[in-house]
Amino acid sequence: MQGGRISPLEGFSAGEVRRQASARFAVATPGQGFTDITATVAGFVERSGIGQGLVTVFCRHTSASLTIQENADPDVRTDLMTALDSLAPRHAGYVHGIEGPDDMPAHIRTMVTDTGLSIPVVGGRLGLGTWQGLYLIEHRDRPHRREILLHAIGA
Amino acid sequence: MQGGRISPLEGFSAGEVRRQASARFAVATPGQGFTDITATVAGFVERSGIGQGLVTVFCRHTSASLTIQENADPDVRTDLMTALDSLAPRHAGYVHGIEGPDDMPAHIRTMVTDTGLSIPVVGGRLGLGTWQGLYLIEHRDRPHRREILLHAIGA
Amino acid sequence: MQGGRISPLEGFSAGEVRRQASARFAVATPGQGFTDITATVAGFVERSGIGQGLVTVFCRHTSASLTIQENADPDVRTDLMTALDSLAPRHAGYVHGIEGPDDMPAHIRTMVTDTGLSIPVVGGRLGLGTWQGLYLIEHRDRPHRREILLHAIGA
Repeated sequence: MQGGRISPLEGFSAGEVRRQASARFAVATPGQGFTDITATVAGFVERSGIGQGLVTVFCRHTSASLTIQENADPDVRTDLMTALDSLAPRHAGYVHGIEGPDDMPAHIRTMVTDTGLSIPVVGGRLGLGTWQGLYLIEHRDRPHRREILLHAIGA
Repeated sequence: MQGGRISPLEGFSAGEVRRQASARFAVATPGQGFTDITATVAGFVERSGIGQGLVTVFCRHTSASLTIQENADPDVRTDLMTALDSLAPRHAGYVHGIEGPDDMPAHIRTMVTDTGLSIPVVGGRLGLGTWQGLYLIEHRDRPHRREILLHAIGA
Repeated sequence: MQGGRISPLEGFSAGEVRRQASARFAVATPGQGFTDITATVAGFVERSGIGQGLVTVFCRHTSASLTIQENADPDVRTDLMTALDSLAPRHAGYVHGIEGPDDMPAHIRTMVTDTGLSIPVVGGRLGLGTWQGLYLIEHRDRPHRREILLHAIGA
């Protein structure tokens, strides 16, 4: 297996650290599925006034999680959900069953995706690639209220 | 697949960045299983004196990893371990076998879980949800000494 | 399932936050495979002059991702790629197929690995364990140019 060719560092920039900001928001999910939270996180970064720094998004749950995924073709999210269903099937003889057949698969799907995401802030904006969006993934069948924490630091 | 309804930002708060702190600790694991490290990380945050900021937990190994998971029913951890065993089975004809049949599955399980976790600090405490705990997952059969780094930044 | 024995915190150190740094680099990948980017990230930390702090590495793509894995036996990477192939098989009746049979598996493999990694900086160096290396994983068949953002903060 051959490795790639790495370019030299570009755009090196250094400076002071002057401020941080925190906030939270909630997502009322209608059951299993993806919610695009990119605009809310971008709005937080703008409000923080931070031009260079780091923003962290954190999901306060163990049966819902975060991911950065393609924001163009919605079919991608359909296939991602099918993939999660195959990685953590609903009926697999789980010991933990008292919260319903969708609960234990939800914990496994949370474990293999992300609870927290940290993204550099560049020029006052999230440093996402063109095709990247931030998504909350609801893994449970029924509607839930999911809380998300935001933190930004920099200058 | 329908998305959720996103609330406006709440509790926005901004301020200076005044300090950071670092520390490390070790876990002597008895073999495969989960160790709850939440209290140790919370103690570090308290000792740092940071009230608002970000804490990062980092595992210095490739056959042990971290996850944020349910801290209530221990059956959940049993099922998570079974799920990891199914995602990265012990006998799958691996090329890399010289360190034993539990080594390559341990690397795969590390890859699909987390080596590092970053969690916002809110009001001097870890911003975890009610049911969230921080766990070290030992993936090897035999006892190991695992080193974990801590870093906190904020004010 | 028995938990491990946790040692007390060691090496606690606190101090000011004085600076941050940002940069970016690109990797020209020859198709599916791992590229070791540890030296580039370590060079960035050195250039930043940060002795204690946190460095974040972020991949701006949804069909390539990051992981921290064993840097010794290259067979490990061969087996990791086989494992990813088994977790997200190439022909699984995906709805999203217009970008080729390697595209949807690439998104799933990105979801179960990492888009961003945050690592504490200790004594002016990446706080990696002896056997840990930072890798970009190219999931597509054909060569791609992948952009990676770097951010460091501390003192």
